[in-house]
Amino acid sequence: MKKLCEDIANAIGSAIRGYIGADSGERILYMGADGTPTAVIDDVAERAALHVLKDDGRPVRLVSEEMGNVVFGDNPEFTVVLDPLDGTYNALRGIPFYSVSIAIGNTDLSQIYYGYVKNLVTGDVYVAERDRGAYLNGKEIRVSTRKDTDPYCASIYGCAFTERNFLNRNGKKVRLLGSAALELCYVASKKTDAFIDARNRLRVTDVAAGKLIVEEAGGVVTDDFGAALSTPLAIKERVNIMASNGRIHDELLARLREWNK
Amino acid sequence: MKKLCEDIANAIGSAIRGYIGADSGERILYMGADGTPTAVIDDVAERAALHVLKDDGRPVRLVSEEMGNVVFGDNPEFTVVLDPLDGTYNALRGIPFYSVSIAIGNTDLSQIYYGYVKNLVTGDVYVAERDRGAYLNGKEIRVSTRKDTDPYCASIYGCAFTERNFLNRNGKKVRLLGSAALELCYVASKKTDAFIDARNRLRVTDVAAGKLIVEEAGGVVTDDFGAALSTPLAIKERVNIMASNGRIHDELLARLREWNK
Repeated sequence: MKKLCEDIANAIGSAIRGYIGADSGERILYMGADGTPTAVIDDVAERAALHVLKDDGRPVRLVSEEMGNVVFGDNPEFTVVLDPLDGTYNALRGIPFYSVSIAIGNTDLSQIYYGYVKNLVTGDVYVAERDRGAYLNGKEIRVSTRKDTDPYCASIYGCAFTERNFLNRNGKKVRLLGSAALELCYVASKKTDAFIDARNRLRVTDVAAGKLIVEEAGGVVTDDFGAALSTPLAIKERVNIMASNGRIHDELLARLREWNK
Repeated sequence: MKKLCEDIANAIGSAIRGYIGADSGERILYMGADGTPTAVIDDVAERAALHVLKDDGRPVRLVSEEMGNVVFGDNPEFTVVLDPLDGTYNALRGIPFYSVSIAIGNTDLSQIYYGYVKNLVTGDVYVAERDRGAYLNGKEIRVSTRKDTDPYCASIYGCAFTERNFLNRNGKKVRLLGSAALELCYVASKKTDAFIDARNRLRVTDVAAGKLIVEEAGGVVTDDFGAALSTPLAIKERVNIMASNGRIHDELLARLREWNK
């Protein structure tokens, strides 16, 4: 699996190079299967990945951001959940924080057994295999040990709630970085302590790999109400997600509940 | 000036290396002159800079985040406004976005004539000299040309207002990155279109260099009410700041005014 993921990531990295920080990549080509506009750079990235999968030749069910659900070959044995470019806007503006996210699984988010996220700027590779731990560039990673009384840092997707009314207390930090897949890896590698989707607009393609990576690093991933995630691996599904080091999970859920009242 | 700034930045870069992503750098040593706690990593960074300034030997008035206002030698001819490490929290957590910011001027923010910001992760150097343009790694930079009807991106300091009630409209993006000096350089190099301080808690050390860099790249920097900034170069001063490409400045001011009602 790792080889296939690496080949996909390398192909995408090369394909998008000319569009980083360039207005030419921003033009909208069509509406993607996920219901959001597909820019030139998204299309280029996905096509690079499709070529690799086709050349590989194994029968596979693909769930990808722009094409949606596609089957290659007969009787596929596994599902590839792909976000060819997570953090499109960052890439277009030259903000150095975007990634490719690839997960291997069966029918829903609870059954992902391989996750791969590559930071396309630094080349950092985050990998997790079910029950075998999470790794950054081959070195095992663990979530942070910060408790809810420590100064912790959460990154958020969207900005529908504020630091003031949800997270702001002594020393708490908020970041808004713009690549959910990579932000989940930040939780796994203790660069942050939590990642919260504030808009319920993420897709399985954004979170499938990162979820396994956080869990294998010792963290906890639920929906915003604390329930386990078992969203079907289909492009139209929306996910809401809260990932943390585990120790601050209950507090974040409680505060979000209070805020939602 | 450039040589002095480079020497300072290199000394700081080497001094903090062992503290990146390490808990050991987080311990609080004392309250800094700016009224915020000084962590080991801040102290180490500033001391590295002080050694360089002392060795340089020129008489200089220094305004620095932890030490405050200091005079080296007799009858200093200029003021060095220094933030040895802008984005301390990012550095401590291993989030790759922190910088050193150095400005040369006289008595207030309106008179800065040299600005230097180095991204300590990528090594990118942003420089501006009054009336001589702004440069990223030696190449001239200009702000973006996006209008208020385009999908634009603002990064914010703090999170006291939300995307929803202040910035959120079709395609607008918000980022919260955690190094004001570098975020000003992002406006100058059209990675974003605006930077807004939402908390009125920045200091001249955070913004003196970045302000000149934005202006020399063709952008506009004012306070949150649209007035020119002439804050005295002293460590206790607080600044509120709105930097943009100019074209979206009036709209941002109008919306902030409305939001503040």
